[in-house]
Parts: sequence; structure tokens; C-alpha cells
Amino acid sequence: MPDPIELRSDNAAGAAPELLAALAAAGQGSALAYGGDDDTAALQEAVREVFEHPDAQAFPVVSGTAANAVALSALCPPWGSIVCHETAHIYVNEAGAASMFGGGAVIRGLPGDDFKLHPTDVERHLDGVNWGDPHHSQPSVISLTCPSDMGTVYSPGEVSALTSVARGRGMRAHLDGARLANAVVANACNPADLTHGAGIEVFSLGAIKNGAVSTDAIVSFDPAVNDSITYRLKRAGHVASKMRFQSAQLVAYLTDGLWLRLAGRSNEAMAALAEGLREREVDLLAPVDANMAFARVGDDVADRLEDDGLLFYRMGGGVIRLVTSFQTTLADVGEVLRRVDSALTR
Amino acid sequence: MPDPIELRSDNAAGAAPELLAALAAAGQGSALAYGGDDDTAALQEAVREVFEHPDAQAFPVVSGTAANAVALSALCPPWGSIVCHETAHIYVNEAGAASMFGGGAVIRGLPGDDFKLHPTDVERHLDGVNWGDPHHSQPSVISLTCPSDMGTVYSPGEVSALTSVARGRGMRAHLDGARLANAVVANACNPADLTHGAGIEVFSLGAIKNGAVSTDAIVSFDPAVNDSITYRLKRAGHVASKMRFQSAQLVAYLTDGLWLRLAGRSNEAMAALAEGLREREVDLLAPVDANMAFARVGDDVADRLEDDGLLFYRMGGGVIRLVTSFQTTLADVGEVLRRVDSALTR
Amino acid sequence: MPDPIELRSDNAAGAAPELLAALAAAGQGSALAYGGDDDTAALQEAVREVFEHPDAQAFPVVSGTAANAVALSALCPPWGSIVCHETAHIYVNEAGAASMFGGGAVIRGLPGDDFKLHPTDVERHLDGVNWGDPHHSQPSVISLTCPSDMGTVYSPGEVSALTSVARGRGMRAHLDGARLANAVVANACNPADLTHGAGIEVFSLGAIKNGAVSTDAIVSFDPAVNDSITYRLKRAGHVASKMRFQSAQLVAYLTDGLWLRLAGRSNEAMAALAEGLREREVDLLAPVDANMAFARVGDDVADRLEDDGLLFYRMGGGVIRLVTSFQTTLADVGEVLRRVDSALTR
Amino acid sequence: MPDPIELRSDNAAGAAPELLAALAAAGQGSALAYGGDDDTAALQEAVREVFEHPDAQAFPVVSGTAANAVALSALCPPWGSIVCHETAHIYVNEAGAASMFGGGAVIRGLPGDDFKLHPTDVERHLDGVNWGDPHHSQPSVISLTCPSDMGTVYSPGEVSALTSVARGRGMRAHLDGARLANAVVANACNPADLTHGAGIEVFSLGAIKNGAVSTDAIVSFDPAVNDSITYRLKRAGHVASKMRFQSAQLVAYLTDGLWLRLAGRSNEAMAALAEGLREREVDLLAPVDANMAFARVGDDVADRLEDDGLLFYRMGGGVIRLVTSFQTTLADVGEVLRRVDSALTR
Repeated sequence: MPDPIELRSDNAAGAAPELLAALAAAGQGSALAYGGDDDTAALQEAVREVFEHPDAQAFPVVSGTAANAVALSALCPPWGSIVCHETAHIYVNEAGAASMFGGGAVIRGLPGDDFKLHPTDVERHLDGVNWGDPHHSQPSVISLTCPSDMGTVYSPGEVSALTSVARGRGMRAHLDGARLANAVVANACNPADLTHGAGIEVFSLGAIKNGAVSTDAIVSFDPAVNDSITYRLKRAGHVASKMRFQSAQLVAYLTDGLWLRLAGRSNEAMAALAEGLREREVDLLAPVDANMAFARVGDDVADRLEDDGLLFYRMGGGVIRLVTSFQTTLADVGEVLRRVDSALTR
Repeated sequence: MPDPIELRSDNAAGAAPELLAALAAAGQGSALAYGGDDDTAALQEAVREVFEHPDAQAFPVVSGTAANAVALSALCPPWGSIVCHETAHIYVNEAGAASMFGGGAVIRGLPGDDFKLHPTDVERHLDGVNWGDPHHSQPSVISLTCPSDMGTVYSPGEVSALTSVARGRGMRAHLDGARLANAVVANACNPADLTHGAGIEVFSLGAIKNGAVSTDAIVSFDPAVNDSITYRLKRAGHVASKMRFQSAQLVAYLTDGLWLRLAGRSNEAMAALAEGLREREVDLLAPVDANMAFARVGDDVADRLEDDGLLFYRMGGGVIRLVTSFQTTLADVGEVLRRVDSALTR
Repeated sequence: MPDPIELRSDNAAGAAPELLAALAAAGQGSALAYGGDDDTAALQEAVREVFEHPDAQAFPVVSGTAANAVALSALCPPWGSIVCHETAHIYVNEAGAASMFGGGAVIRGLPGDDFKLHPTDVERHLDGVNWGDPHHSQPSVISLTCPSDMGTVYSPGEVSALTSVARGRGMRAHLDGARLANAVVANACNPADLTHGAGIEVFSLGAIKNGAVSTDAIVSFDPAVNDSITYRLKRAGHVASKMRFQSAQLVAYLTDGLWLRLAGRSNEAMAALAEGLREREVDLLAPVDANMAFARVGDDVADRLEDDGLLFYRMGGGVIRLVTSFQTTLADVGEVLRRVDSALTR
Repeated sequence: MPDPIELRSDNAAGAAPELLAALAAAGQGSALAYGGDDDTAALQEAVREVFEHPDAQAFPVVSGTAANAVALSALCPPWGSIVCHETAHIYVNEAGAASMFGGGAVIRGLPGDDFKLHPTDVERHLDGVNWGDPHHSQPSVISLTCPSDMGTVYSPGEVSALTSVARGRGMRAHLDGARLANAVVANACNPADLTHGAGIEVFSLGAIKNGAVSTDAIVSFDPAVNDSITYRLKRAGHVASKMRFQSAQLVAYLTDGLWLRLAGRSNEAMAALAEGLREREVDLLAPVDANMAFARVGDDVADRLEDDGLLFYRMGGGVIRLVTSFQTTLADVGEVLRRVDSALTR
């Protein structure tokens, strides 16, 4: 069989060498535990600078689920509801984590074109709520996933329009940034534009899929919720005693745009791949805005691609999911397209 | 000021080079996410072999609090109580984590000499319980901390006696092994002797303080609770997508006794330090069984030691806490004792 | 204005004189607290006899929400999901109660004709689940509301078909019987036929809307879950110390078919009302199986009916909700129809 | 055997005729559900008048456990601790209810003479806390039980001193008033003096043991926490749809001092009983301030009293608990003392 090419998930990718190096450096010597170290102090400076906000504070965690669920529990009262797209990771793939940490808060998944929320759909949902009636969970947070789990990306304007609707109802705004760097690159915007500049109050930074060693972070712009996050993380077991191993990576990640360069590679590889697929008239299910594509190739072609060593997920109905990462090269893409050609013509 | 010497906490120590190397190796290439990788498979083999139990299963997590609280929530019903020593980390230092994950389960801290539980104290407590009365939280788990938070160590026989009492009441048995390697070394026993051989059903492996990069693990011997742990960890955000970064370290940790060699160094350093302090007639508050000592030196001496660059915690009343780690050398101990001599005679 | 006629809700109705009398009798003398009294013993006998099951056990509670949420928390693990119709009270009107008591368990509301679940819809949902994958809440309980919140009633055969689907997936079966007596009367069946005879394992008895003084009950047929319910109710504050005040009512309720006679009155009144509305060609939104009707009369007619003293809820779009209770007489229905005639012709 | 005389518990007493009458009157006719009725409006007026506070709001519930646990969950963050006496009902007898509703908040039981908290003990505990350190549950509420579970009563001055200590640390103040009427009578004070006048912000009214039909209430003086209580009660299943059945009783209870007359009877009976026991040189374990006495009579005497038809609880060590209620007459007390005479001299 030909060499395997990894397109299953950016979660299957390895660690970025720059981040491994930062971690190894932090592993020397000793330092105060639980965040009282220099690397963690440097991380706070880095987020304030990169996100251009004086109150930005980062809380390193081990997973995107932790980042989302603990942040949401700090934004949503137990009797509240969190409004998101019906394909959102927090609704579909996190096994009720936000409900558990949130004391039974509920999540409402709404439909929406291109796997994104749209103001009219959100407003329709909110208009149907019995506000102030304790029989009904009260919408308290809007959570946007950007890029979505289908690889589509909100523009800053789209985020802004949605958080405006939410703010008009007294709701808070959260962004699941599991692939945030890819979204920033896709929008060619400043990180601030897609976050606090667009009304987002708390978000997850999402470094794991982009090369970090099991290190994501909650970033909050609101000093008032930071206390809550601090206590909630500790009792969730999400405060690493040797926090500098996480912080040092995140400092390297955010410094000199490394995070955007890493994401740039995966976006570029995917753009080339999607372009190639379109040229071959392969049907793509959603706009390819970042590093994911869903291609309807049919089960026969999918079988052949598997036989040819391509690694991907099958979504049913002849649709395959292709995900690039910072490790995917343009040479990989060329080879993928050669195998696609072969599979299509056999 | 003289060079600082780190005795604050083994949580202040860095990463063991062997584990950093294992992590770096795992960071290359790609692998299936969420534990579907070769390193995680190897980890399962390693725990089965090292702990000599066919059903042993390891679940990597990011902190000891996570390891304890999630394991306890899988052993204790929401209406249960967890019985431990009144100085136990789960009771004093984890901010109600086990109560949160356990749906409101409560923890009862009992007194006991040498900072350890003793069968008579436990039996007295259990005799006073209204068993089967729903007005009262039902004792459901005994949790032993070994070494204790004051550095004292249970022998396998002591653990066995306590778990027998618990089992006689239908309770489960858990061990907080945040420094388990130090306890195994102190007992010069097999790892199995101190765990399932002594009636422990689930424990935390505790690699973090002993050189791992933010990686502890729950180890369970009971297939029936593994499902519960699997689901609970995921919704707690405690399943790292790139689990191999954790698993590879733990494989290296458990292979060829590395974990015991690392702990051996810290125990040996502490033994030399305690011996030196006793020779200088410094009062030690508790038996020095592992890598911690609590020395009553008086506030003046403590001030001088701080001035001389010794890093330690002050517990009030002129008592200082000294903790060695795998990084502490016998040369360090010699230098510490020289500074103690100087501080005592000034 | 003419005399008001109450059609807003059976929750607006008063107490049945027979139940008030039973309560007053129980209020004399003294008796052991927390269910150790003769009335509670008699209640257990009554549920075993009426529901024809040797293990039936009743747990009095103060509300239907309590009955549903605590029962569901005893059937569903924290990582489970509860499958119900998208109009179910537990999904729409109980503010996340089952999620709170269930440690973050989630509820999935499915569509279905006539406001009822149907086996094909349930199977389609269950086919789409990633069974055994901890990223996804695992369907663990099916919960049927009978009558539904729109007044439609499942037949024993329909219940049986749905619980069979659930049992085939290892799920438990729960019935929200807030108006169970109305459903039994509507089906002209034995109470056993609609509950354990149709695969239901735990249900709420639903006496409140049918004349009881703030007294509903969980009834369980499974000894294995009774312990869980016992502890859960106590720590939920749902065990009345003077339980006999509740038990005495429920004994009277279940004795000699009083509960079915009371529900018979409301069903009979509604049948007459619906018949009258149909004769007047008023559009009814759903089959009128029990004691509720949703009539599309238009906003003008609704205004006039309000002016004429009819008490009802407006659902939007010119639709009004009409609910009869054990207090509604056929004379009341005659008068309602006279006012409808007047409103339609004005 | 002679006629039984009830001294086990005021929870074994029946219903006060005045409250049964109020309930029966409320059971007629129809009224808006969920508190939109005239009786509930009248209740709000009654608590504002009786407790002399413009913001007093009452929330009827079915049990003292519900009243305590839901109120505490509205006052205490999930990472907080609730400080109370080690014999407090919330700590010993409510099976972790406050921890469950409080999202894993913990309860710390402190020792204290006469089964009451004292400022010095509380201050010592609070001085030992690591304030602001997320590893440690943060003391957030002081909860006083008045009368205590051993029948001792705080004076307004004692309550005030304790709530001052708490307020000085930023903590809230709660009172478990399961027998509040007995405490008000014992202090011969205004209800306001023992509650908001002494710094209490939220308390339970405690009507159940004093003659109500399974109806207690949370009373809050703080508009800011009322929203939280409103939502928390609903999703706890603690909002009775036919709330007027509860409200009507509580209006009657608070009107014209009925609650204090009922409690006066039980206090008076207990005072006579305690006086008689002291004359007979029976050792009483605690000051008899309200309607409870703990008498060390020895097991032989206890056996004889049981044989003679006295109903009471045995606490171990020859100690018996005697509790009077509004149903206990002075004639009952005379008969009890006759049987005591007989038992002591046999």
C-alpha cells in the first residue's frame, strides 16, 4: 500500500517543533506551582498584546471541551440556556459537559445555513421564549463555533451581528475557537476583530489542533468572570500544578505570529486541495473556508481512496471528511489529488 | 544572596529528561486521536504488567485533582460520603472537586495519628452512621492518601486493614497516589502490594510531582467502573485528544522502573536531610517516610534560611515544610545542611 | 360581565372534597414521621393492587416536576440522554430540572405527529447515535407524556411499541402521568395496561390536576431503582416529614376508582365541549382525547369570549387552549357553547 | 399498656385545626396556578408586616430540607463553604442536600458549647482559611439553626454577633428556622429582632412542625437573591402549581399571632416538663430553651417509660429525647411526670 496521508483530523497531527522546544525549555529548573511562574506571567502579557485588550486573561487547560464547558458555566446560570448551532461541538460532541459544569444548564441547538447561526434564526428562537418565566430555561449565552465543525467561518461582521442580537436580550457571548487561528487567517483580520471587537466576551484559544501539546486556553476579557473561572477550573481539576509547561507553549504560540503561520499552512493546503477537487468536479458540501472539506465522492471512490492509503473519515452517504493540519504540505496535496484522479477514473 | 535551593514542593520541580524525550518522540508523525494510538495501547500493557493485574486500566489526566475527583465520582453515589483523613488533599485542597463531580457527595475528614487513618477511628465513625437512613449521607468509599500530605506512608498491611474495614461495610477503596512512587520505594514493596494486593480498587498514579509533563492517571482494576470513568472523564473535559502525548510519557515512566528510580532520588535526598536535621536536634513533626519533612526551627531560623536562599513553605508557629524531588541531589542536601548549621548558630 | 368559567388549566381547579376529607382525618392525632405511618403503608398496598404489580412502590411528592425529574435522575446516568417528544413538559416546561437532578444528563426532544412519539421517529434518532462513544450523550431513557401536553393520548399498544424500541437499545421507560387518570379513562383500560403492562418501569401518578392537595407521586415497579429514588428524594427536599398528609389523600384517590371518576368528569365535559365546537365548525388543532382542546377561533372571537367571562389561555395565532377539570360540569359546557355561539355570530 | 403520649417529635404531631380550615377554604373554586392567586398575594403582605420589612418575600415549599438547601444554594457559590454548628440539621440530617443544589458547595460543621456557634470559634475557623486561594472552598455563608437541633436558642444579640463576624468576611447569613416560632416565643422578641434585625438575610419559616400541612417557606429580605430562588425552586420541583393551598395556610399561620400561640403551647408544656424533671433530679444535657429536652435517665428507666407508653427517641447512653408540640397539653405533662415518678422508683 502507498504511504498513508493523514487527512482524518488535525487532532491526529503531532506537536509543532517550536512548541516542543518551548516546553522542553520550561521543563528545566524549578518554578512556583499553580501559575506563580514567569512563563504564565508572560502568557498574560502575550494575550493582552495579541488580542489588544488590557483585561484579557488566559487560563490554560488540557482540552477544548474543558475550555468550552468551564467558560460556559461561568457565563450561564444553572437555570439558563446556551444557544448555538445544531452542529456545534458543545451540543453534539461534548457529552453534556456544559450541562454538567453548569449545574444543569441546557443547550439549544438551532438550524442555520452553512452550519452557522444567522441573526434571523436566533431572533425567531428568542422571540418564542417565555422570558422571566421560571418554567422555562432562560437564554443566557450565545456560543459561536468559528470555524464551525463543518469548516465554515464567520466574518467579524457576522459575529458582531449575532452578539448584538444576544446583547439586546441581556445574553453573554462565547466563541468556541478550537480552530481560532484558522478563522483569523481565513478572515485576514486582527485577532481582536473576531473576538472582543465583535462582541465576544470569552473564548477558547484552541492551540491543540494547531500543534500544542495538549494545551488549550480560555481567554476572558471580563474581570468580573475571571474569579468565577479561577475557582471553577480548580475544582474541575483543570489547573495544572506545573502550569509553566502549558504557558511556555502558549507564549511561543502567540509570539511573532507562530499560531497564524501554523494555521496558514493548513488553510493553504486545504485551499489547494479544495481547488483541485472542484477542478475534478467533486461536490463539496459546504464552503471550504478553513482547513476542512466534506466531499461527496460516493462509496466506491471512498473505498479506493482508502485502499490507496488516504486517511479520512466517512460521514455516510458517500461523503468523506478531509482535514489538513500544520503538518500537511503542498506536496501532500499534490499526492492526494493524484490518488483522487486514480480513484475517479478506475 | 546564595544560589536558591528548591524545597518548596515537588510541584515546583521540572520535567524528567526521559519523559520529555518520550513526549518529543510521540510528537512526531500523526496518530488516531482520543486514545486510539499505539502509545496508549502500550500504556495499558504497562499498567497491567507493573501492577500485576489483568484488568488494570489507565486513564491519563492532567492533574491529581482530576484523577481523584473523577475516580471518586465513579465509586460514590451522589448520596454517599467519602471517608478520609482530615488532612487529606481531597478534603482540604481540592475545593470540593469530588463533591462537584459526585453530584453533591460529601467528604468526611477523620482524625488519626501520624496523619493517617487507623481502623479503630474508622470503625468508630462507621458505627455512628445511620445506615440505610436517607437523611444521612451513606459512607461509600474510603480514600487513603499515601504518602499523606504530611509525608507519612502506610504499609501494605495498614492499607489492607483499612480496606478490610471498608469492605465489611460495603464500601469501595480508593488511594490518592499523588506521590505513589515515593510510597512504593519507602515500603520497598511491589506496586501491586500497596494497591490491589491491599484491597485498593482505584488509585491515582501521581506522575506529575515525579517528573511528568502535566500527566497523572487514574488506574482502575474494576472493569465495571471503567465505563463510568470513560464517560465521566470525557464530559469533564479530561480526555486529551492527542492522548499519546500523555501515554508515551507514562509508558516511559513505568518502564524499567524509571518511576521508582526518580522517586528513589527524592526519598534518598530527604532521608539524608532528615538524618542531618535530627543530628542537629531539629524537631520533626511527623515521621519522615518519603520526601517531605516538617521541621520546627522557629521563626528566626526560618528567616535566616530564607535570607540564605533556601526555598520552602512556612506553616506557622515556626514550622517549615521541606520537600525534595527527583531533581534534588545529595550535594544539594549537603549545602542545605551547611546553611542550617549557619542559621542555627547565628 | 357574566360569571367566569374556568377553562385555563386543571391546575386552576380546587381540591376534591373527598381528598380534603381524607387529609383532615389524617391531620388528627400523631404518627411516626417520614413515612413510618399507617396511611403510607396503606398507600403501598393501594398501588400494588390498583396497578396489579407486587413490587409497585409509591413515593409522594409535591409536584409533577419533582416526580418527573427525580425519577428520571434515578433511571438515567449523568452521561445519558432522555428521549421525549419536543412538546414534552420535561423538555419545555421544567426549566432543566431533569438535567439538574441528573448531574447534567441531557434531554432530546423529537418531532412526531399528534404531539406523540412514534417508533419510526425514535428509531431514526437512535440509529444516528454514536453508541458507546463517550463524546456523545448516550440515550438511556424514553419518556412518554400521556396525555401529551396537547391532550392527545397514547393507547397501550402505542406505549408498548415505543418501550419495545427503547428496551431493544438497553434504555429504560418512563411515563409522565401528570394527567394519567384522564389517559386511563380515555383508553378504558386497566391502569396496569398503560403502565407496566406496556413496558413502563417508572411513572408519575399525577393527582394534583385531578383534585389532590399538592400531592403527586412517583410509582416504580423496579425494586432496584427504589433505593436510588429514596435517597434522591430526601436530598432533594422532597420527603415530607408528615408524609401521611399526602399518603392519606392518595389512598382515598386510588380507592374504589375515585381517581377515574374524577378524571371521567373532566373527560366527559371536554368530549361534550369538543363535540359542540366541531358542530360549530371550529377548527381543533389536535385530536381531543382527554380534557384539553386547542381551538383556532381567531383573535376577534377570542376577545369576545374573554369579554364574556370565559377563562382560557391564548396560544398565539388565534388559537385558544381549553382545559376541563373534575370541577367542570355539563352545565358549564352548555354555557360555554352558548357564549361561543354568541361570539361566533357577533 | 397505658395510653401512649407522643414525645418523639413535633414532626409526629398532626395539623392545627385553624390551618386545616384555611386549606379547606382555599380548596374551593378555582384560581390562577403557580402563585398568581389571592392567597399568595396575601402571604406576601403578611410576611412584610410580621417581619417588618418592605422587601420580605415568602416562597412556600414542602419541607425544611427544601427551604434550607435551595436558600443556601442561592447564597453560596459552588466553590463556597457553608459554616454551621457540627450538630446542624443541614450538616447531619439532610443527606448533602445543600451540596447537591449548591453544585458541590461544602458544609463545615464547627464545635460550640450548648450546640450553638460562638463568635470566637467561628473567627478561629475563618482565620485558618486560605482566602482567595482556589484550592480551598471559600466560606460564603454562615447558617444558624435556631432553636438548635438540641433545643437551645440563640438570643437576638447572639445572632447579631455571629452575623457581624460573617459580614466582616463578606459572607451571607442564613437561619434554619425549622422551629422559628418556638425561638421567637422563647426570646419574647419581635420576629424581626431575630431575623433581619440581627443580620439574617434569608431564613426558613418552619411551619411544618408547628401544625402546617407540609408547608414551610423560605423568606428572603434581599430582592437580589429572589430571582435566583425563583428559578432554583422551579427546577427543583418545589413550586406547587396550586400554591394557594400552601399560601392560605401560611396566611392563617402568621395572622393574629397564631404561629406564636401554637409554639407557645409547646414551649409551655416543655417548660413544665423540664421543671418537673429537674425537681426529680433528672440530668438534662442542654439548656431547655424551647420544646426539646435531652434527659439522661439510664437505660432501665427508659425501658420502663417505654413499657408505660411514653413515645420518645433513645439517643444512646441512657439519654432520651423528649419533644413537645402544639398538641401537648399540661395534662399530658402531668401524666408524663407521674410515669417518670413510677419509672424512677420501681
